[in-house]
Amino acid sequence: MNNFTFCIPTDIRFGKGQIACLAAELEKYGKRILMVYGGGSIKKSGLYDEVYSVLKDFEIEELPGIEPNPKLSSVEKGATLCRKKNIDMILAVGGGSVIDVSKHISCAACYDGPAWDLMMDRSKVKKALPVAVVLTISATGSEMNSGAVITNEDTKEKLEINTPLLYPVISVCDPSYLYTLPPKQTAAGAVDTLSHVMEQYFQPNDEAYITDALSEAVMKTVIRYAKKAMDEPENYEARSNLMWASTVALNHLLTVGKGGAWSVHPIEHVVSAYYDLTHAVGLSILTPTWMKYVLSDVTEKRIAGFAREVFGVKEADDRKAAEKGIEKVEGFLHSLGMPSTFSEVGIDDSMFDTMASEAIRTSGLSERAYVHLNKDDVKKIFMMCK
Amino acid sequence: MNNFTFCIPTDIRFGKGQIACLAAELEKYGKRILMVYGGGSIKKSGLYDEVYSVLKDFEIEELPGIEPNPKLSSVEKGATLCRKKNIDMILAVGGGSVIDVSKHISCAACYDGPAWDLMMDRSKVKKALPVAVVLTISATGSEMNSGAVITNEDTKEKLEINTPLLYPVISVCDPSYLYTLPPKQTAAGAVDTLSHVMEQYFQPNDEAYITDALSEAVMKTVIRYAKKAMDEPENYEARSNLMWASTVALNHLLTVGKGGAWSVHPIEHVVSAYYDLTHAVGLSILTPTWMKYVLSDVTEKRIAGFAREVFGVKEADDRKAAEKGIEKVEGFLHSLGMPSTFSEVGIDDSMFDTMASEAIRTSGLSERAYVHLNKDDVKKIFMMCK
Repeated sequence: MNNFTFCIPTDIRFGKGQIACLAAELEKYGKRILMVYGGGSIKKSGLYDEVYSVLKDFEIEELPGIEPNPKLSSVEKGATLCRKKNIDMILAVGGGSVIDVSKHISCAACYDGPAWDLMMDRSKVKKALPVAVVLTISATGSEMNSGAVITNEDTKEKLEINTPLLYPVISVCDPSYLYTLPPKQTAAGAVDTLSHVMEQYFQPNDEAYITDALSEAVMKTVIRYAKKAMDEPENYEARSNLMWASTVALNHLLTVGKGGAWSVHPIEHVVSAYYDLTHAVGLSILTPTWMKYVLSDVTEKRIAGFAREVFGVKEADDRKAAEKGIEKVEGFLHSLGMPSTFSEVGIDDSMFDTMASEAIRTSGLSERAYVHLNKDDVKKIFMMCK
Repeated sequence: MNNFTFCIPTDIRFGKGQIACLAAELEKYGKRILMVYGGGSIKKSGLYDEVYSVLKDFEIEELPGIEPNPKLSSVEKGATLCRKKNIDMILAVGGGSVIDVSKHISCAACYDGPAWDLMMDRSKVKKALPVAVVLTISATGSEMNSGAVITNEDTKEKLEINTPLLYPVISVCDPSYLYTLPPKQTAAGAVDTLSHVMEQYFQPNDEAYITDALSEAVMKTVIRYAKKAMDEPENYEARSNLMWASTVALNHLLTVGKGGAWSVHPIEHVVSAYYDLTHAVGLSILTPTWMKYVLSDVTEKRIAGFAREVFGVKEADDRKAAEKGIEKVEGFLHSLGMPSTFSEVGIDDSMFDTMASEAIRTSGLSERAYVHLNKDDVKKIFMMCK
């Protein structure tokens, strides 16, 4: 196992009705809250009113309307509000986008200058307001990690910041808030979670057996419950297992002792930057194809292990087991209604060359990925996805 | 899944040479350290000198000679030292006993009265000195949890205190420090770890699939590496996987969403209180026997699941699979050289009745265990262990 540090200060409150704890916990930080949220779904579901009822003794400012792929302009807007209204803490009520923009606001509010400065020079992030979370979409794991992605609309850059200052102080994860999630979003969250685990699982170091076994546990959980949660939106067992799976998938536990770069995410990021594609749709198209592309005498053993442990493939021959495992991944994604080719989502080959260059330029694919990929490899993977 | 909270502030520094970080981290808390350790093993191994060399700029007081099953008198001694020398923090260099006594000293030092008061009325624990850990035996998980067991020599009581104040602030977990552990202690640590996971795994709620799957991952890790670490003491892969397994086994991750009382530990605690028995030896004798005793139409499905997932048992029939699983547990313990009967360790049936009463009196066995056990049940289990 590689050396690692592990320290997650976030206080997770998981389960039905946990929002009741919020007032007592947030009082520690002051009285003035900036509440960040997305569209109208929390108003429709009644959560908006619930937050106000629980936090009736606080002064709440609002920053609504956060969209998927949150933008720098929202960060600036939030930071300005924080300074103007002397905000003590930020409350993110939503999924990954809302949490990420809240995290960015939390440091931008404590910085005297344009928010983008902090992305260009991370050493300038010295302070942040506390961020609390009420989770309404489980997918990104941002409720229990210290990363936050933001897009600069002007420069078209999508960058991540990652510092211990950004761990939420508390995250309320109530699986019953997921009951109103439409099947498509449920599927997308499950695919995102599965992909997060696979990215950490398929990395060079195979001495971290325990980490791999824990990863298999989380992948099995996603596979067991994703379709069920789509079919029975109010199945608490399915929702709660998926919700905790998505948190554990990206809270650092499944990467300890390993190390290396992710493989599919960096390729997908470029595709969804060029096309208006849901992240999980891109992942669904690319993941099995990437697996087929990297399958070799070197990788067949690990992919076969994955197939056996995660999908219960019985085949003794490693190559055949690996191939069956890839089929199983395809079958699982298909069962969730995810597309498997670019043509299904209206993407042709015109940008393959450009996107392949970009994927290599912006990632560790060619040097630190499970199987090192160059531009030509990425282009071939794109071709296989046609 | 049951509701839960999850928050572990301990900063884990895992891997070779991580002790180098200690000076910079401990500086935050002051200059005056009470170093708590056990027998002479850290002097023999060179770790004692390493600590002094790393912490050369600190003032170090010492409390050596902590024995297994740490005693209240050591706590009093340490607390007095802390007050007299104005100690800023405690450094535990050792395994579970050393860490637990350090945790007790940390609150006793901040309390104006006898240390045992805090055990009789936990609400009196209001403050604690920071505790840092350099782990030399992996077994109890105390390096990343908030519990600490202590024995009152006068009243013969062995009680646990558990409060968030007792999370170590930092724990250095360097698997190479385990190289000098004799095979017997390696085996004992592995058995202790396996038992911790099994206690949490065999509990009433089976809707927490993810927690059970994560538990299976940790159990598989212990089974994979325990014998290897005994046979090849300097096998880093084995040592590191076992070390992290023992930490994860009892850091709360494997109990979330479940709930209920432990089954074998409370029985074993009484046995080792009456006889001078290594905890893991008692667990080895009692665990398979307890499994046989509770195997029924109700439990066979879960025990069969355990057998299939953890030991790879292929049997389709649940009862047969469960029985094979129990055999596998016996086989595993036997492979580590652990005894399987009381007679092997010189325990006769003279105290069975008394011990059975005591086990029921001091535990949740009769009301909250996986299978509720009364005094007669415990006595029967003892008889089966003869």
